[in-house]
Amino acid sequence: MSLRTDAEKIMQSAITASLPDTAVEKALQHKEFGKGKIVLVAIGKAAWQMAKTANYILEGKISQGIVITKYGHSKGELPPLEIWEAGHPVLDENSLKATERAIDLVSGLTAEDTVLFLISGGGSALFEKPLIPLKELQAITSDLLASGADIVSMNTVRKRLSAVKGGKFAQLCAPAKVYAIVLSDIIGDPLDMIASGPAYPDTSTSEQALEVIRKYKIMVSPEAAAALRQETPKALDNVETIITGSVTELAAAGKAAAEALGYETLVLTTSLACQAKEAGSFLGAIAREYAGKGKKLAFMAGGETVVHLHGRGKGGRNQELALSAGEGISGLTNAAVFSFGSDGTDGPTDAAGGYADGSTKTKLLEQGITIPGVLEQNDAYHALEKTGGLLITGATGTNVNDLAVLLLDEKL
Amino acid sequence: MSLRTDAEKIMQSAITASLPDTAVEKALQHKEFGKGKIVLVAIGKAAWQMAKTANYILEGKISQGIVITKYGHSKGELPPLEIWEAGHPVLDENSLKATERAIDLVSGLTAEDTVLFLISGGGSALFEKPLIPLKELQAITSDLLASGADIVSMNTVRKRLSAVKGGKFAQLCAPAKVYAIVLSDIIGDPLDMIASGPAYPDTSTSEQALEVIRKYKIMVSPEAAAALRQETPKALDNVETIITGSVTELAAAGKAAAEALGYETLVLTTSLACQAKEAGSFLGAIAREYAGKGKKLAFMAGGETVVHLHGRGKGGRNQELALSAGEGISGLTNAAVFSFGSDGTDGPTDAAGGYADGSTKTKLLEQGITIPGVLEQNDAYHALEKTGGLLITGATGTNVNDLAVLLLDEKL
Repeated sequence: MSLRTDAEKIMQSAITASLPDTAVEKALQHKEFGKGKIVLVAIGKAAWQMAKTANYILEGKISQGIVITKYGHSKGELPPLEIWEAGHPVLDENSLKATERAIDLVSGLTAEDTVLFLISGGGSALFEKPLIPLKELQAITSDLLASGADIVSMNTVRKRLSAVKGGKFAQLCAPAKVYAIVLSDIIGDPLDMIASGPAYPDTSTSEQALEVIRKYKIMVSPEAAAALRQETPKALDNVETIITGSVTELAAAGKAAAEALGYETLVLTTSLACQAKEAGSFLGAIAREYAGKGKKLAFMAGGETVVHLHGRGKGGRNQELALSAGEGISGLTNAAVFSFGSDGTDGPTDAAGGYADGSTKTKLLEQGITIPGVLEQNDAYHALEKTGGLLITGATGTNVNDLAVLLLDEKL
Repeated sequence: MSLRTDAEKIMQSAITASLPDTAVEKALQHKEFGKGKIVLVAIGKAAWQMAKTANYILEGKISQGIVITKYGHSKGELPPLEIWEAGHPVLDENSLKATERAIDLVSGLTAEDTVLFLISGGGSALFEKPLIPLKELQAITSDLLASGADIVSMNTVRKRLSAVKGGKFAQLCAPAKVYAIVLSDIIGDPLDMIASGPAYPDTSTSEQALEVIRKYKIMVSPEAAAALRQETPKALDNVETIITGSVTELAAAGKAAAEALGYETLVLTTSLACQAKEAGSFLGAIAREYAGKGKKLAFMAGGETVVHLHGRGKGGRNQELALSAGEGISGLTNAAVFSFGSDGTDGPTDAAGGYADGSTKTKLLEQGITIPGVLEQNDAYHALEKTGGLLITGATGTNVNDLAVLLLDEKL
């Protein structure tokens, strides 16, 4: 049972460390603000939770601020902050009004003041002030989509058609300082992508944006053409950015928890993106290599694997990864592989992920069930249910991808 | 060019260390034989080559011996050894005659004598003396196959129907010592599987063999039934076994070569068995994790990946692995992934494997080629040909699976 207990502990520690609350708390712990005012602007799906923590930690120091989150995502008043709910994933009038209000709040600040800018996923739709009529912006976006333009091309264009994206919101805050705390849910932490980077210098150029428009033969108004010719900021002197709650932190917290339990650890990657069951096979192969050496080892791989659906079963990528690894570590007495989604929801199931050890394959075989057969049916949930291998956390309130862990404990 | 050069050096060193010649040479280097005679018995596809090296190193010390290899695999006289060629993968009359002759040669030896037993892949068919008529052995084998019995069940039965398999040849050599040098081509080195383990204690039992026969309702003669009731040796005091030329050694030699070039190394596994392109994706994810840290690192993964064929292109598992990794390491300036088959033949191509680095994806895009598109067509060969990414060695004379390597050299 010890490996199972260790797995639960490591998972809980990693998730807790990745909660928006924890993330904001850590980012504010040693932060010294200037002598002026602190204005809070929180955008994204975790905006309310992040703002609540900041408001609590900086008790009374925030003079004013705004929270812009998705409908149904605010959970009450947070004085002195204004709370706005708006459209996501499709922006609406409230998105525009709330953004306008945020711009008001950060206008007229001095170099002594700070905008505490809390950014989480979903900010692209919730935080927007188009430089052209909304209708044309939507038309250009759908034309680009229909032409097969990739996300980088799309963003290169859209940043120029916005008054806040591509670093422009940070410009509006100047001369005030911007302290941006970014809760990342995108692998590799591309800061210009999360919420379209309102406080991050843009690396794309006006020329590239025009090239996209030419290439896909998109018709634009003279106003849009003029906006596309405007350059975005290439450097922002007034911004300090902390990335937090990312999969990197999820893995780091998992690593720290494993080390506290006595494991030697190695984070293999935080950008895993291959097929779930193949990642499980790979981790199983690592397990076989290091088994029998009398060591207590933990290998971690963060990221987001994919599942190819061909069956009608129930499961999720983390459950498939763990179950597939169960095939490879079968018979190893002190090995386990588990994998979980930090949001507590793996696929369309009530489990956060799955756990398999050296006995999982045999337990299933005794019931006439083979792991390859289960994976063929994408039915990992029911198989893991039978072996006590479902990891259940409930909704966690964070979403920073997944963590897969291989444990070998031969010092048991 | 430096990473490319390093890749070639590492590959060549690993292959050279895995050649039957090198393997036998190493195994004989510090071996002290008794005062008595040395009788050589070499079986398998590499038998001639292994025997040649042993004969050369032990110049004049071998009193007699026999080489049993596949038709067309002997390359001339090796006095004082007798050379026999026989049927593989299906045994024939020559297999039986040659095995009988080998038993003659090891009969009547004393405890001072040594049988130098050189074992390579293919020995199961080449080295056999059935305890029942050959016809019935073949019938039982095909009945078991038709019933869906797995390889472990098959071997549990067949070891009991043979006078040499399952450790029984070593018993025939007693009281002489047996010094067995095993050239492994099976992942995980299961010594009872390579050539059906003629000099390796059998872990399966007579009861298990009878259970297999009952389960699959196989009809056997009274002679076969009696043979199945005979127990195989559970311990062999007179045998010393050296496993050599295995994928473990391939990886170890690759590791040593990388270290000589200044890399910090880690062997992740020597039993990789997942999909080739997914393994490439996983290695790419590891590359992204460790890139930008100013280190010189090499990660190794030995084994044998699989390819799902859905296109009509040309390629092999090592080429697919490397090319797939090329997608994941795109843009990294000092990263490369290469993978090769130790036999020098990757799939139905003249390449041993493939090499990709941070520029591979861009080079292909410039020619309008995408890596996912190439992999969909299983056409890695032609893509790597265009980027100078084919690794060519020619036939190497060994076959100990594959090695995939990730190189990061940020101390360039």
